[in-house]
Amino acid sequence: KKVYKIAAIPGDGIGVDITEAAVQALDKLAETNGTFSFEYTTFDWSSKAYLERGWYMPPDWATQLRKHDAIYFGAVGWPSVPDHISLWQMILPIRQQMNQYVNVRPTRILRGTRAPVSQLQEKPSDLDWIIVRENSEGEYAGQGGTTHGHGPNAIATELAIFTRVGIERIMRFAFETAKSRPRKKLTMVTKSNAQRHGMVLWDTVFNDVAKEYEGVVEHDKMLVDAMTVRMVNKPETMDTIVATNLHADILSDLAAALAGSIGIAPSSNLDPTRENPSMFEPIHGSAPDIAGQGIANPVGAFWSAAEMVRWLGKGELDGVADQFMEAIENVMGDPKTRTRDMGGSASTTEVTKAVCDEI
Amino acid sequence: KKVYKIAAIPGDGIGVDITEAAVQALDKLAETNGTFSFEYTTFDWSSKAYLERGWYMPPDWATQLRKHDAIYFGAVGWPSVPDHISLWQMILPIRQQMNQYVNVRPTRILRGTRAPVSQLQEKPSDLDWIIVRENSEGEYAGQGGTTHGHGPNAIATELAIFTRVGIERIMRFAFETAKSRPRKKLTMVTKSNAQRHGMVLWDTVFNDVAKEYEGVVEHDKMLVDAMTVRMVNKPETMDTIVATNLHADILSDLAAALAGSIGIAPSSNLDPTRENPSMFEPIHGSAPDIAGQGIANPVGAFWSAAEMVRWLGKGELDGVADQFMEAIENVMGDPKTRTRDMGGSASTTEVTKAVCDEI
Ligand SMILES: CC(C)[C@H](C(=O)O)[C@@H](O)C(=O)O
Ligand SMILES: CC(C)[C@H](C(=O)O)[C@@H](O)C(=O)O
Repeated sequence: KKVYKIAAIPGDGIGVDITEAAVQALDKLAETNGTFSFEYTTFDWSSKAYLERGWYMPPDWATQLRKHDAIYFGAVGWPSVPDHISLWQMILPIRQQMNQYVNVRPTRILRGTRAPVSQLQEKPSDLDWIIVRENSEGEYAGQGGTTHGHGPNAIATELAIFTRVGIERIMRFAFETAKSRPRKKLTMVTKSNAQRHGMVLWDTVFNDVAKEYEGVVEHDKMLVDAMTVRMVNKPETMDTIVATNLHADILSDLAAALAGSIGIAPSSNLDPTRENPSMFEPIHGSAPDIAGQGIANPVGAFWSAAEMVRWLGKGELDGVADQFMEAIENVMGDPKTRTRDMGGSASTTEVTKAVCDEI
Repeated sequence: KKVYKIAAIPGDGIGVDITEAAVQALDKLAETNGTFSFEYTTFDWSSKAYLERGWYMPPDWATQLRKHDAIYFGAVGWPSVPDHISLWQMILPIRQQMNQYVNVRPTRILRGTRAPVSQLQEKPSDLDWIIVRENSEGEYAGQGGTTHGHGPNAIATELAIFTRVGIERIMRFAFETAKSRPRKKLTMVTKSNAQRHGMVLWDTVFNDVAKEYEGVVEHDKMLVDAMTVRMVNKPETMDTIVATNLHADILSDLAAALAGSIGIAPSSNLDPTRENPSMFEPIHGSAPDIAGQGIANPVGAFWSAAEMVRWLGKGELDGVADQFMEAIENVMGDPKTRTRDMGGSASTTEVTKAVCDEI
């Protein structure tokens, strides 16, 4: 029996509730299947711990994480710690140092649920996207600084760094993803009209890599502002989407909202070389406003867990991951087992129980 | 009789059609009113001209523009010229050198028209926003560069620059705008969790300026990714919105899509000191796909022209601008006088005639 070692980092707020829910569902899935199981190490790296002891992760965090096959991440961020501190002491260093240069964000309207746009209410299958987000450089490179403090002459900069190596690998991943899907279509997003250095390099590399897929993957380009309009009005014209760290961050939240709720959206932070563990996390945050009330939507957490199973199985557990998704969608079909953000009134525990029963 | 001197730059594609439409409506407005008129200088600064003679604007462009009370701009951008060239040779230098540090983008659902989100179909008044965009620095500062060419080791950077002076003036403008509106509410957008220098300075300055409006303007903060979700799901919770050059660029396109069509959305590039002429332009671009077919939606152009009248009048022509908007909304109420993007089949000329008749 194969044992997968999972580093679980529940983090802050609803991250704790939904990680617990994901672990329950994963264990149920393993039990039902019988050929594999999960062994968890839970790390208490959180804003709460930071406020007590002054740090999020210990100095050897990378070594500790590398002892696992995958990382399951809940959420980080809490009002009493400035966000840029919590994020730069945990989620962003993990993504960058674990070489998780791809962030995959599938979005579609789950069977039986209702999206806000009327076109999509009539034809939910019009929205079925995979957003491939560059996850290691760009606007989140972390460079930049402040001169003249925060006084009257203060100047602050954010330096976005783009490398051909970084762009080429994300483009290849995106083209391969597009190629693996029935529609074989890739849309590349930039803001190369206003940002004429890094974004123009994106255009150049895209054109180069596209040549290798000529006749295999259909492709087009969009500016990020116009892309939001197309997502609202012509969802059916897109399939796989590739964009920079910041642009894809924005577009994937919009995508989740258009699909019905930010609470359902999953993400996979992948190191495609498999030299480091990849990380799976729902895209919603710690949601301080509803934390501790037991009403967080665990669907984004389940879907992320399903993607983790898919990744760990290297093709051999796709059926199991599909079974997990099937269970989630069956449960979503009934308003009685949906949380508030999806028009229901079920608790996290009730949804989790329903999904486990369904598995 | 007061004569306003307008520099008209039709530019590319549908920019030409809609500038002509705007001029007709403006003249009709002046004629009906009788107390003022417009005198236009039309500049042939366009991609077409660039392809013939190698430049967009002559060396003394700034001096020429400064002889006018306002600039009316159609659109720039054409497939045969790389976008970063067309934009950096025309629209961006104008915005920056004319000190148009504010870009105001009102968005609402025009009476009688239909928005894509079902909540807004039931209650169109839920969407009524003014987006205040920082228009002079930030991600569009134009700094950055490329090292190692576009070869295998290429590195390209985009440097976003934020200054306290630049942030403070846009915050003040935004708070004043919010204060002038019935709901007195301002939402400030950043990405200060991931971008910890410039965005954190935005937070700091926002907090400082907010103190002056305590008890007068209600205010809150959003991260740009989460903001897209709120725009889709809770439009009624927002009124005035302030964001950086790039963030507001993206959010204002999304806002226009949610309000029904990018074809209706106006923008005002303002120099609040009035030392330089301000510039008015619809936010849609040159739309090469429909250029020359006579079907461009002139509503964004009319609305921009109405904002120009308001600005020129310094409070004395507000009634005239309202009358213009009233005429537009009356015409939009009838599907027969709407263009294709708004579910009708009227031509640009037909809509223009209807609006002129209504004035
Ligand atoms: C928490 C934050 C750093 C993160 C991001 O911006 O990458 C989140 O918004 C996401 O989308 O994963
Ligand atoms: C044409 C382009 C430079 C422009 C911008 O990005 O500012 C446009 O998208 C806009 O929103 O005015």
